Amino acid sequence: MSGQNPAVRLLEERGVSLDAVAEIVCQIQQGYYPGLTPEECLQSVLKVVEKREVQYAVLTGVALDMLAEQESLPSPLQEIVARDDFLYGVDEILALSITNVYGSIGLTNFGYLDKSKPGLIGQLDSSEGRVNTFLDDLVAGIAAAAAAKIAHQRQ
Amino acid sequence: MSGQNPAVRLLEERGVSLDAVAEIVCQIQQGYYPGLTPEECLQSVLKVVEKREVQYAVLTGVALDMLAEQESLPSPLQEIVARDDFLYGVDEILALSITNVYGSIGLTNFGYLDKSKPGLIGQLDSSEGRVNTFLDDLVAGIAAAAAAKIAHQRQ
Amino acid sequence: MSGQNPAVRLLEERGVSLDAVAEIVCQIQQGYYPGLTPEECLQSVLKVVEKREVQYAVLTGVALDMLAEQESLPSPLQEIVARDDFLYGVDEILALSITNVYGSIGLTNFGYLDKSKPGLIGQLDSSEGRVNTFLDDLVAGIAAAAAAKIAHQRQ
Amino acid sequence: MSGQNPAVRLLEERGVSLDAVAEIVCQIQQGYYPGLTPEECLQSVLKVVEKREVQYAVLTGVALDMLAEQESLPSPLQEIVARDDFLYGVDEILALSITNVYGSIGLTNFGYLDKSKPGLIGQLDSSEGRVNTFLDDLVAGIAAAAAAKIAHQRQ
Repeated sequence: MSGQNPAVRLLEERGVSLDAVAEIVCQIQQGYYPGLTPEECLQSVLKVVEKREVQYAVLTGVALDMLAEQESLPSPLQEIVARDDFLYGVDEILALSITNVYGSIGLTNFGYLDKSKPGLIGQLDSSEGRVNTFLDDLVAGIAAAAAAKIAHQRQ
Repeated sequence: MSGQNPAVRLLEERGVSLDAVAEIVCQIQQGYYPGLTPEECLQSVLKVVEKREVQYAVLTGVALDMLAEQESLPSPLQEIVARDDFLYGVDEILALSITNVYGSIGLTNFGYLDKSKPGLIGQLDSSEGRVNTFLDDLVAGIAAAAAAKIAHQRQ
Repeated sequence: MSGQNPAVRLLEERGVSLDAVAEIVCQIQQGYYPGLTPEECLQSVLKVVEKREVQYAVLTGVALDMLAEQESLPSPLQEIVARDDFLYGVDEILALSITNVYGSIGLTNFGYLDKSKPGLIGQLDSSEGRVNTFLDDLVAGIAAAAAAKIAHQRQ
Repeated sequence: MSGQNPAVRLLEERGVSLDAVAEIVCQIQQGYYPGLTPEECLQSVLKVVEKREVQYAVLTGVALDMLAEQESLPSPLQEIVARDDFLYGVDEILALSITNVYGSIGLTNFGYLDKSKPGLIGQLDSSEGRVNTFLDDLVAGIAAAAAAKIAHQRQ
């Protein structure tokens, strides 16, 4: 499914399948659109990850996670990213640039996903021995954007 | 408590006391900071509403609510604001400008509050016969910013 | 050209034709893409104003300008919007929500247009007897977004 | 002047003194506030770089520049950052998180500085043999925020 999209390949390498992201989208939107199918959620996720802006955010955030895992970031950034410092907000900023692509209505879903951490997002957040400081926010951002896209289309 | 601050006076006229906003702040932050007092939450809210950026967002958003209530907005904006159209995102955009004042860490709390709508926020959202399209988002934005301010101070 | 798009009709009523916006787009992009035609710039502007997010920003901002012109906003918002207070940033915030639709690369063009005020934008800003506090920023936002769209397509 | 502030130390290591940033602030604000002194501009810059949000943006952006210089970023991010790809917007997004700290009025100044590239900003942008993809935007963001802070204080 990833084809030539380097951001999708990178997400898959880090344990994030687009099907799992689509599942989160379905969960948050099924209450509003009862007939919503997994296929429709996946199509929406695929459209989101096609956007260059989204790919650049993913490539940058996951690179920072991987470099922190290898202890290759300069200090004190290394320590800040490795421990996912509560006050470090660059991960949320990158995710917001994803959410913005489908307008501000994705914002609320992003905040909700980022705090309630359903399914995959919670697993990423708590993975032992891995640095996923950016990845959980990026996944929340993509899911929120895909949910917003469905809302726009259904109207 | 409102003194010369026109935004605080306007919030109070629309049924929002700063004490009620402080209560929301305490609710979302008490899990992280067990000794947090209502007075500390109120002080944080007071600091947020002192910011010019925050006051301008409140004055603008509440004016749009009031004008919609009086059916004084031009069409089709009148209908969009009056029914709180799901896809109208200007209310979230204004609230985000409040949250931004204390950095991106307020963003997650804003999204969470805006979706889960605890206490006062839920009551505003569902008020019959009133237009609170902007007000519930503005209150969520102020509470989220005050919560972020506490997080910054406690570190 | 405006058809059923209420935002385009409102822009035209306020003296802004899409052709004039397209001219600004051509001016800022011609140095980068020598073969760029006025028709291509206009097509890009048309795509931008089709977006719901953009239409909602225009409908809201222009309504605030018109209400200020009629002295129908509550005080002190009336005075703040009427005199285009330097520190009132809600007009820029609305314009930013337009620019965001095509990613962050529109941001730089928006800031540049908003400060250098070429062509139509400068005329709007200085119109005697009219309130165009929001309109000049909205036009800069649409032109910046259309320029960003061209940059994305040409790559 | 840098003291314990790791972001300021990093800026200085990359050739950016706070005095040079203050000079840019004075240039863009002197037309509006004739009596503005270099000392006042420097004080404003110092306040901006004290903010945690600003420090985190600087630490992250400059680390990405340095890693690209050492060819240590994973591909294709390495190539994108090294050539300062026109459509890569993460640098502007990080700078915007700096500018946001003093509200949206910094936004216009940021865009203007980022496009016109006066003084130090232009030199950074064109440095041969160095990667300053993030640095020039970060400096423009700090200068724009400091200019906005002066505007808020002078009102």
